[in-house]
Amino acid sequence: MQRGAILVLSGPSGAGKSTIINASSDEIGEYYFSISTTTRAPRVGEEHGVDYFFVSKEAFEEDIKAGNFLEYAQVHGNYYGTSLKPVRVALSEGKLVIFDIDVQGHRLVRAKMNDITTSAFITPPTLKALEDRLRARCTDDEEVIVGRIENAKEEIKAVDEYDFTIINDTVEKAAKEFVIVAKAARLKQSSEDEEKFITQWLSK
Amino acid sequence: MQRGAILVLSGPSGAGKSTIINASSDEIGEYYFSISTTTRAPRVGEEHGVDYFFVSKEAFEEDIKAGNFLEYAQVHGNYYGTSLKPVRVALSEGKLVIFDIDVQGHRLVRAKMNDITTSAFITPPTLKALEDRLRARCTDDEEVIVGRIENAKEEIKAVDEYDFTIINDTVEKAAKEFVIVAKAARLKQSSEDEEKFITQWLSK
Repeated sequence: MQRGAILVLSGPSGAGKSTIINASSDEIGEYYFSISTTTRAPRVGEEHGVDYFFVSKEAFEEDIKAGNFLEYAQVHGNYYGTSLKPVRVALSEGKLVIFDIDVQGHRLVRAKMNDITTSAFITPPTLKALEDRLRARCTDDEEVIVGRIENAKEEIKAVDEYDFTIINDTVEKAAKEFVIVAKAARLKQSSEDEEKFITQWLSK
Repeated sequence: MQRGAILVLSGPSGAGKSTIINASSDEIGEYYFSISTTTRAPRVGEEHGVDYFFVSKEAFEEDIKAGNFLEYAQVHGNYYGTSLKPVRVALSEGKLVIFDIDVQGHRLVRAKMNDITTSAFITPPTLKALEDRLRARCTDDEEVIVGRIENAKEEIKAVDEYDFTIINDTVEKAAKEFVIVAKAARLKQSSEDEEKFITQWLSK
């Protein structure tokens, strides 16, 4: 059976992750973009099953107890997590599963599925560039922007835990690098179950 | 300063490593193919500085004492090793340095230069295919072939230590995969010194 592969993307909000993925989508082939589950209320324009799976706190906590999360965390009183089931389905179909999760989430995915995981930290070239971008898009309150910046200052320190760093100075260059990373991630699926591979390789 | 990256290739003699590299050379850009140093006598047609650097046992042992080897091993009474100096020069020029070394050599390179190292194990699809290839090329005595096969049986067990496995069933497919691996290896050079990167990223 073919087995899929995991590509974890982290990096500050405002790094341009979605833009880079969209600019690369023709070249990276079919993938499943993992949708997180959260207990926070939907914002204007957000759709259930597109932006997030929105669930109640009770439902989330039941899923925690049942071991249904690949990773989860509590941030500002809200839960955020990745349900195992859709990931397992996509992997069993041999797909590349892309996660947009934070440093903490990356560590948990590594701990559980290290052998099929590739990761990239995507960031604007400097903290100043990040601030300029967050302010230019005018979608967040000043308080939210300050929070994102403080968060970015912490997250950047984990850059060495990632297989690759993609510096988004131009979308064109970053997308080119992202295509290489996505193809490399997909190559990992061929390694599948190593013990099985070795046994088969040795059998006449 | 730009810093290069290392790509370690391992796999049984007869896996088709040279063929794959040659078939990919237009696409992977400039690289430095590391030449090993050995104390074994040159075979017919082998050239000093092309196939190996051929040196005396005394010279080799002096270099060991002086810490001049990135990795070395003794096989059937002969030394084989990789001198640090040309590797350092190529890395400081920002080049991709490709090594064709065994499982043991890979471990030593990992131990010393893990952060800029990517590795791939290249193998024919099965042991049977390897035997057929070794016999078809008619360059080795039966004794040498048997030795290579026994060696391959051991080396395949280390396949999980490598970032990628490239199965050479067709040169075309294997070369395509190799190009992805080589480009991914080169991307690692952008991570350079992470501490420096973080400091620069945070400075206004």
